[in-house]
Amino acid sequence: MAILADGCFSPLGAKTAVCLVRYAPGEVAAVIDASRAPATVQEVLGFGGAIPVVASLNEALPYRPNTFVLGTAPRGGKLADADRTAVVEAIRRGLHVMNGMHEFLNDDDEIAALARRSGVVLWDVRRPPDDLVVASGEGCPLCPVVFTAGSDCNTGKMTAGMEIHLGRLRGGVRSAFAASGQTGIMITGGGIPVDRVVADFIGGATERLVREAAPGADVVILEGQGSIIHPGYAGITFGMIAGALPLVYVLCHQPTRRAIRNYGVEIPALAELVGLYERAIDGIRRIPVVGIALNTYDLDDGAARRAVESAQRATSLPAVDPVRFGSDSVVRAIREFLSI
Amino acid sequence: MAILADGCFSPLGAKTAVCLVRYAPGEVAAVIDASRAPATVQEVLGFGGAIPVVASLNEALPYRPNTFVLGTAPRGGKLADADRTAVVEAIRRGLHVMNGMHEFLNDDDEIAALARRSGVVLWDVRRPPDDLVVASGEGCPLCPVVFTAGSDCNTGKMTAGMEIHLGRLRGGVRSAFAASGQTGIMITGGGIPVDRVVADFIGGATERLVREAAPGADVVILEGQGSIIHPGYAGITFGMIAGALPLVYVLCHQPTRRAIRNYGVEIPALAELVGLYERAIDGIRRIPVVGIALNTYDLDDGAARRAVESAQRATSLPAVDPVRFGSDSVVRAIREFLSI
Repeated sequence: MAILADGCFSPLGAKTAVCLVRYAPGEVAAVIDASRAPATVQEVLGFGGAIPVVASLNEALPYRPNTFVLGTAPRGGKLADADRTAVVEAIRRGLHVMNGMHEFLNDDDEIAALARRSGVVLWDVRRPPDDLVVASGEGCPLCPVVFTAGSDCNTGKMTAGMEIHLGRLRGGVRSAFAASGQTGIMITGGGIPVDRVVADFIGGATERLVREAAPGADVVILEGQGSIIHPGYAGITFGMIAGALPLVYVLCHQPTRRAIRNYGVEIPALAELVGLYERAIDGIRRIPVVGIALNTYDLDDGAARRAVESAQRATSLPAVDPVRFGSDSVVRAIREFLSI
Repeated sequence: MAILADGCFSPLGAKTAVCLVRYAPGEVAAVIDASRAPATVQEVLGFGGAIPVVASLNEALPYRPNTFVLGTAPRGGKLADADRTAVVEAIRRGLHVMNGMHEFLNDDDEIAALARRSGVVLWDVRRPPDDLVVASGEGCPLCPVVFTAGSDCNTGKMTAGMEIHLGRLRGGVRSAFAASGQTGIMITGGGIPVDRVVADFIGGATERLVREAAPGADVVILEGQGSIIHPGYAGITFGMIAGALPLVYVLCHQPTRRAIRNYGVEIPALAELVGLYERAIDGIRRIPVVGIALNTYDLDDGAARRAVESAQRATSLPAVDPVRFGSDSVVRAIREFLSI
């Protein structure tokens, strides 16, 4: 992949680019950001090794990408003129295009025709399947599902799920990661963007997502979306829980966040939030939280460790920052609870 | 309106046709059902007076309809050949078409072109607005919202809301009915089909719906969808609650229903279900249930009265069957709670 992250490749920006580097480093030929080039990904992020950061698609071509990646655009998911030019150029150079934006390239007649002529694939990862149905209410019969729940959007649900998934694999358990958002879908090559499905099919899309991930796995780690206390996205979160019928949650939180971002809703104390999730679909199933995953990126090491200890004390549950300190104790708690 | 309900016009079938007759009788010129014609609506439903039931669109024309209504088709929302023929004929006769099916007439090039040539409007009531946004989290600042919540789908949420709305008007309170499903939208001439919006916008669509209904009203009665214990539709229900931020619920239930229809989920005792709804979005707001609306259509009068009394005893809340016994005690409870 050559990943476009022009002007925004940094540890806190360009979530898609950063996560692809973190979880699919072997697939990343180069990152394009004129404001950082020339550099290595290691120099910019503090991890990622010698992957080059270059100034243009042209400069990326010597590293032999076969796919051009448009990550989440910072301009609200719209295809800016510069990005469009880059996509056209990439297709002309014979690259497939993986598009994480709200706007679909396959709906752009000119780009779609060009791709056909060039024999390349345009993958709009945010386009949901068109044959979704209402949930059956059976969840995932093949194996248990772990749901990464959040106090808010952007608290590390995808990352925690991925770290637990990788941690479980190391422990000899066959886990599968079920991606429900564009970054996870790009990393794993599959999944369903649940936030884009028609409301009637939230549960059904989630059920299909976990069922398609399940064959051959001992456990499915399902990437949650939104939060049950988010005024805008609560429907997606509750609907995913009711559709997937997970056996356990891992609760993901950023300790310095006091309120839902851009909303007045206060995030309750962690122990209370654990209770809210455990009772979320009480009429269907009670689902325990078995571990806490903190996102402490904005704290120093000492403060991060204190935050982890404090979360543990407050909830009597194992807590980790999976990126900073590893996810072992939470992985252990999941395995014990599910006997896998 | 001339309402097509061919082969299904009965008290328990053709929900859209029956509800239009009940709540917009002055707008109904004729009902088309060859299996019942000739008859009056009164003879078929036990209410509705002299509105004729006729065998074909042709026979309906003398009653001077200006709009042809396609209700919810019993075949899963798909436009059957016979229905299509009827739509084409209606347009040729200069009638507007109100379509409640999943399939949109405006997407049918032939029908759309014919409508343009005939100067008639095709209203696909299930098509959501295309400029929805994520909820702001402020709900409805203009006036309080009453949410009709259900134990399941099809338990009388629209009907209870409409009865309360009409009951409130009689009491001198200015109420507005906010329709979230196709039948309510047809009755009131406005609303948003929340089950058809993209998942991201459930809360935002609901917020817009109550805000658009609010100007000039002392209270908005919001028609709920689904149920928080429904594995398929819970996301819509929770999402609507979080978007509308109602001050109170009226809980709608069919006493003879023991489990979610077509699902294994048992419906808990009424008092427990009240608690589940009251705590549903506890992290954002606690919302009390102030009354119970039962749908006792499948009970005789004695059993219906016992069911109402039993619901009252079990929940310590006023209970009614709004259609059979009126909604007075629940309307009173809402007015007292909201001081209107």
